[in-house]
Amino acid sequence: MADPLGFIESHLARFRSELYDFLRIPSVSTAGEHDGDTRAAAHWLAQRLTDVGLTAEIVDTPGHPIVLAEWSGAPGAPTVLIYGHYDVQPPDPLDEWSSPPFEPTERDGRIYARGAADDKGQLYMHIKALEAHMATAGSLPVNVVVLAEGEEEIGSPNLVPFVQANLERLACDLVVISDTEMFAEGLPSLLFSLRGLSYFEIHVKGARSDLHSGNYGGSVANPGNALAAIIASLHDAEGRVAIPGFYDDVLEWDAETREQIADLPHDDEAYRQELEVPALTGERGFTTLERLWIRPTCDVNGLLCGYTGAGAKTVLPNKAMAKVSFRLVPSQNPSRVTELVEEHLRAVAPKGVTVELVEIHGGRPWKAKLEGPAFDAAREALEEAFGTAPVPMGGGGSIPIVVDFEEQLGAPALLLGFSLPGCNLHAPDEWLPIDNFEKGIVALALLYGKLGA
Amino acid sequence: MADPLGFIESHLARFRSELYDFLRIPSVSTAGEHDGDTRAAAHWLAQRLTDVGLTAEIVDTPGHPIVLAEWSGAPGAPTVLIYGHYDVQPPDPLDEWSSPPFEPTERDGRIYARGAADDKGQLYMHIKALEAHMATAGSLPVNVVVLAEGEEEIGSPNLVPFVQANLERLACDLVVISDTEMFAEGLPSLLFSLRGLSYFEIHVKGARSDLHSGNYGGSVANPGNALAAIIASLHDAEGRVAIPGFYDDVLEWDAETREQIADLPHDDEAYRQELEVPALTGERGFTTLERLWIRPTCDVNGLLCGYTGAGAKTVLPNKAMAKVSFRLVPSQNPSRVTELVEEHLRAVAPKGVTVELVEIHGGRPWKAKLEGPAFDAAREALEEAFGTAPVPMGGGGSIPIVVDFEEQLGAPALLLGFSLPGCNLHAPDEWLPIDNFEKGIVALALLYGKLGA
Repeated sequence: MADPLGFIESHLARFRSELYDFLRIPSVSTAGEHDGDTRAAAHWLAQRLTDVGLTAEIVDTPGHPIVLAEWSGAPGAPTVLIYGHYDVQPPDPLDEWSSPPFEPTERDGRIYARGAADDKGQLYMHIKALEAHMATAGSLPVNVVVLAEGEEEIGSPNLVPFVQANLERLACDLVVISDTEMFAEGLPSLLFSLRGLSYFEIHVKGARSDLHSGNYGGSVANPGNALAAIIASLHDAEGRVAIPGFYDDVLEWDAETREQIADLPHDDEAYRQELEVPALTGERGFTTLERLWIRPTCDVNGLLCGYTGAGAKTVLPNKAMAKVSFRLVPSQNPSRVTELVEEHLRAVAPKGVTVELVEIHGGRPWKAKLEGPAFDAAREALEEAFGTAPVPMGGGGSIPIVVDFEEQLGAPALLLGFSLPGCNLHAPDEWLPIDNFEKGIVALALLYGKLGA
Repeated sequence: MADPLGFIESHLARFRSELYDFLRIPSVSTAGEHDGDTRAAAHWLAQRLTDVGLTAEIVDTPGHPIVLAEWSGAPGAPTVLIYGHYDVQPPDPLDEWSSPPFEPTERDGRIYARGAADDKGQLYMHIKALEAHMATAGSLPVNVVVLAEGEEEIGSPNLVPFVQANLERLACDLVVISDTEMFAEGLPSLLFSLRGLSYFEIHVKGARSDLHSGNYGGSVANPGNALAAIIASLHDAEGRVAIPGFYDDVLEWDAETREQIADLPHDDEAYRQELEVPALTGERGFTTLERLWIRPTCDVNGLLCGYTGAGAKTVLPNKAMAKVSFRLVPSQNPSRVTELVEEHLRAVAPKGVTVELVEIHGGRPWKAKLEGPAFDAAREALEEAFGTAPVPMGGGGSIPIVVDFEEQLGAPALLLGFSLPGCNLHAPDEWLPIDNFEKGIVALALLYGKLGA
C-alpha cells in the first residue's frame, strides 16, 4: 500500500538539502547582472521536476523563462495547476543579514535565506508532495500542470501573455498557490483576499545641474523639498490617502468577514513589540488586520536626492526621485489609480520644478469565497497535517496573476501558504520555519490525495 | 624699477600650469579615502609659498593640516592676513562632468576642474601676486601671513582653535579673502555680507527592519512618508521657513542697502533661463537678489531611504535620512537655530517613528560696512585691473571663519572674489574664467602695492 506520508518522513533531510541548492542560486529578477543566475534557477527547477517524473520544459519569454511541467496520467481525475515563482527579491541592504542571503543557514528551527519563504521554499514543497505520491504509488492522484515563473518580483510582465497563448495546455479545474503566510505559528490558514499594487517612480527636476546651496539657495525651488511636499500631500491627517477619487472603488466589506477578522487571535501590543515600533499607526476607523487586508495603502519604497555620503555637502540638488506604491483592495483598478495619481500630481506639483510620474507596474486585487469541494479538501488536509483547523485570513500582499488565472482559465484559485508573520519577506534575514516546510509537504500530499479521491 | 604687472603678464602661462598641478590633487576633505591627497595638497602649497620667498610650515591639527606662511620684512607697513582653503567639495555625481574633475581642462576661455573657483584657483592668485612683487622688488610692499586650511568644506572644525592659540603670530591689520564671486562677468565686486549655515541630518526610524510593503503596509508608519511630512513642515505656502521663532533674529536691512541691491544689473528672466528652471520661486515679498543675500533659506541637500535601484522593490523601509541645511542671515545664530529645529521636530514628529536630529556643522553670518582706506585701496585696484569700478554685493554662501577672524584678530575682513555666477561651485563642471584668473592676480598685486604705499 502506498505510503506517501511515510516517504516524506523518511526523506525530509534530502528534501531540505535539495531546497538549499535551490536557495543558493541568486535568481534576483530585478537586477540585470543576475540574469544568468535566474536562468540557472529555471534549469535547476526543470531538472527536479523531471526527476519526479513530470515532463518539464523551459519556455523562453522576452524576459526570464517560464518553467512548465506536466503529468496527465490520471484520466477522469481533476487537473490541478500549481503556480509558484523561482525568482527572488534583491537581498540589499546586505549588511543587515546575519548570514549570507544565498547561503541557507539553519538557526532556531528556521531556514534563513533569500527566497526561503518567498517563494522557492513553498514552491518546492509542492514538488516534494508530488514526489511522495509518484515514488510510492508510481502515479499521481490528480493531473498536474506546474507553472513556475521567474518574474513575479518584477510584476510578471510576460506571464499573462503566456497564459493567454496557452489556454489549452493550462486548462485546469483548480489553481493552487503557496506564496503567502499562515496567520500564526501552528495555525494554518486559507486566504480570502489579496491586495493589488500600483508601483510608481516620481521624478522631480529643478535646475540644469546641481547648484551651490549658498550661491543659489532661496532663489529656485529645491527638488528635494518639492518631492517631500508631494509625498506629504498623499496622506491626510486621518491616515487616509488624500488623492481625490482614490476611495471611490474601495469595497465596503461585509459584516461577516469583518467579524471573522475580529475573531482572529491578534494582539496589537504583541505585534507592536515584535516590530519594535513606538506605536501602531494607520487609517483611522480600522483595526490593524483590516488596515492590512481590506484597506488600501500608500508607501514610500525609496527616496534618493542629492548628496547622501558622510559629512556635509552644501548642494542644492537638481533632481529627486521617490519610489511610491499603493496596495489596492477590491474593486480598485491599477490603471484608474495611475490616472488619479497623475491628476493629483498635476494639482499639487510645486512651482519651479517639473514632475514626472513613471508607472513601474500594477496588479489587480483579488477576493474569494472559501466554498466548495476544493476548499473542503484543503481544510481537511491542513487540519490533518497541523492538528488544527485552518482559519480564513486576508492577504496584504499582491499576487496579481491570481485574478488573471481565474479569468483566463475559468478555475478557482486556492491559496494556502506556509510562511509566518515576521518571516522578513523582501527584507534582510528572510526565513521559513523548518517545521512548516515539513508539515506543508504533508498537507499538500494529503490535499492532492483528497482532490483525486 | 620694479614692474610686478609686467612680470605677471610674462609668466601667466606658468602660473596656469602650476595651478593645474594644484587642481590635479583630489583634496576632498569630507571623504576619508582622500586624506592622503588632502595632505599632499598642503605640502604642495607650502612648497610654492617657500618658492616665492615666504617661510612656510605645515601645522598638524586633529583633522587636515593648516598651511601657514609668513613674511615680515616690511617694518612700518601694515600686515595682511591672506586666508584661503586648499580642500575641495566631493566631485560626485561624477557622470555629470564633461571632463574629469581632477584633470583641469580649458574650454571656451574657462578652466574646468573641481576647486578651480572654490578655492584653489583664487587662493593661488594671491600667491602669484606676492611672487610678482618679490621677483621684481626683492620684497613685498606689506607684511604677510598666509593661512590656508584644508577643512573649509567640512566646517573648519580646527581653524578657530588654531587662531585662538596663535593670536600673536596671526596679528594683522586686515584679513583678505578671495573665495566668492563677482556680480557678473567684467564687473568686479566687494562683499558686504555672507550668510551663515546650519547643516543637519534628520534620521527617521521605524520598525526593527525593512518589511514587506504588502504584509505590513498600512499598519505601521513608513519612515519615508514620515520624513517627507517633516520636510514639508519646514516651509509655509509663502516660501517662508515655518519653524516657530526662526525669523526672530533676522535683521531687517536698511533701505540704502536694499536700494543698492535693486540698482544692480540683474535680470530675473535671464537668470531663470540660465538655470533652466520653469519659474523662479522663493520667499514672497523679496527680490531674487534679496532672497539670495539678505534672507535665510532651508534646503534639502540629500535624501536616502529604502530601495533606490532599478525596478520595483516592494519594501516598507525601516529608516530614512535627510540632509537639510539652513542659510542664515544677521543676526541669526546657528546654536539658536539648532534649538528651534529640535523644538520643531519634537512638535511635528509623526506618531509611530522616532526622529533624531544630528548637527553636522554651523557657522555665523557676516555683515560689513565697506568704508575705510583698505576698501578704498581695493576699489582702486579692482577698477585698474578690470577697467570698471567694483559694485557692492551680498554673498549667499558662508565663510564662517570671517566673523571669527574679525572677533579674534580685531581686524576687518576684505572679501573680493573672482569666480562668476554659474561657475558650478559644489556641482559638476566647476569652472573659473581664465581672464579672471589673470586680472585677479593683477588686482591683488595692485592691492598689496596700495596697502603698502
